[in-house]
Amino acid sequence: MSQPETVKLINAFGSPFGHRAEAALCVKGVPYELILEDLGSKSELLLKHNPVHKFVPVLLHGDRAVAESIVIIEYIDEAFEGPPLLPADPHGRAEARFWAQFIDHKFSRPFWLSFWMEDGPRKEAFVKEAKENLALLEGQIKGRRFFGGDDIGLVDIAAGGLARWVGVFEEVAGVRVMSDEEFPDLCQWAERYVSHESVNKCLPSRGELVALYSSWKEMYMQVAKVKFSS
Amino acid sequence: MSQPETVKLINAFGSPFGHRAEAALCVKGVPYELILEDLGSKSELLLKHNPVHKFVPVLLHGDRAVAESIVIIEYIDEAFEGPPLLPADPHGRAEARFWAQFIDHKFSRPFWLSFWMEDGPRKEAFVKEAKENLALLEGQIKGRRFFGGDDIGLVDIAAGGLARWVGVFEEVAGVRVMSDEEFPDLCQWAERYVSHESVNKCLPSRGELVALYSSWKEMYMQVAKVKFSS
Repeated sequence: MSQPETVKLINAFGSPFGHRAEAALCVKGVPYELILEDLGSKSELLLKHNPVHKFVPVLLHGDRAVAESIVIIEYIDEAFEGPPLLPADPHGRAEARFWAQFIDHKFSRPFWLSFWMEDGPRKEAFVKEAKENLALLEGQIKGRRFFGGDDIGLVDIAAGGLARWVGVFEEVAGVRVMSDEEFPDLCQWAERYVSHESVNKCLPSRGELVALYSSWKEMYMQVAKVKFSS
Repeated sequence: MSQPETVKLINAFGSPFGHRAEAALCVKGVPYELILEDLGSKSELLLKHNPVHKFVPVLLHGDRAVAESIVIIEYIDEAFEGPPLLPADPHGRAEARFWAQFIDHKFSRPFWLSFWMEDGPRKEAFVKEAKENLALLEGQIKGRRFFGGDDIGLVDIAAGGLARWVGVFEEVAGVRVMSDEEFPDLCQWAERYVSHESVNKCLPSRGELVALYSSWKEMYMQVAKVKFSS
């Protein structure tokens, strides 16, 4: 058998998007080398391999590069052996892709603004929208261990930002969005996700994330104010 | 052999997103029934099968529904026989997904605003951004017949809105964004795409689209003004 090609992951500490790629590698059992970026001074390596978006994560597999976290998860699922991250049947796969897209393109913006926007009616509207979206995810997880069924799959990893990061954002911003009372199934899922033995070993601790995001809080609030308060 | 399940597509006349789903069915050679929505008064059928986004297109395959145009294209590719819409190898598949995402989530917004925003420095910035994105697609198509290689694939269908709709928007808005001089390879690809025998038979005519979008012009300009001019 030929030597397996090296796998490297360009990531930034504390990035929920980078976590997705790392979690997919951990769940599939793929050994990898982590290359941590300083996002204040992006490396030539990152700019070379993701010239379009210039974002982490980027997966380097031999001489091939893959960017965009959801694309990376599907690549890892298709390129490596290990537990499947998407169902085998086309309709189950379509459902998983639908909810992963939902998280990135409908869920994330109001959720993010719920934390960092200054108080007022516009923030209240975003909190309302964020909770409506959380209710849709609560409906999806009800009665299941994971969005993927009995084990972690694409949607769990895409939603991984909820599982560990939401509590961090809530603490740093002093805002409660996803409470046990309102979203009991989602909160139980979040516990299962962060406790999963494959995920747990590549997850930053809550304390480290609180320190990191506390240092970024003012910047996030300023961005939310300038971009979305008018 | 069991009877094949019926395939129905909920669409709206002139929608570039709906065209994606229809083009995928045509390229794969899947017979389907078209259900045309009146977007001013959405049907119970649409709201039932896409309660999250309430948008066309929605594919109905037997008792299963699939929403979101890119998700539908991948579903059609996986659920039906016919020419493949994605490459076989994982890295080629990741590249196709990357560029399809690029079109939806980086390309579309400045491109759209280039047409409908009122003149001024903000519009000029969006036109500049749209042209930078067009240059990236020009780089991708150079030396190939289609983004998918020798025949139409996921990225071609995702970019189908460029191929027929861009000329329509240019005519209705009186703005030139994608000229032969600046983007010769992309313009030649657009010609090949609209002339492709499978695509051609499910493509609205340019005249019909000009009439439709002329009737929406004022609304688009108003939306661009209210949402993006501040």
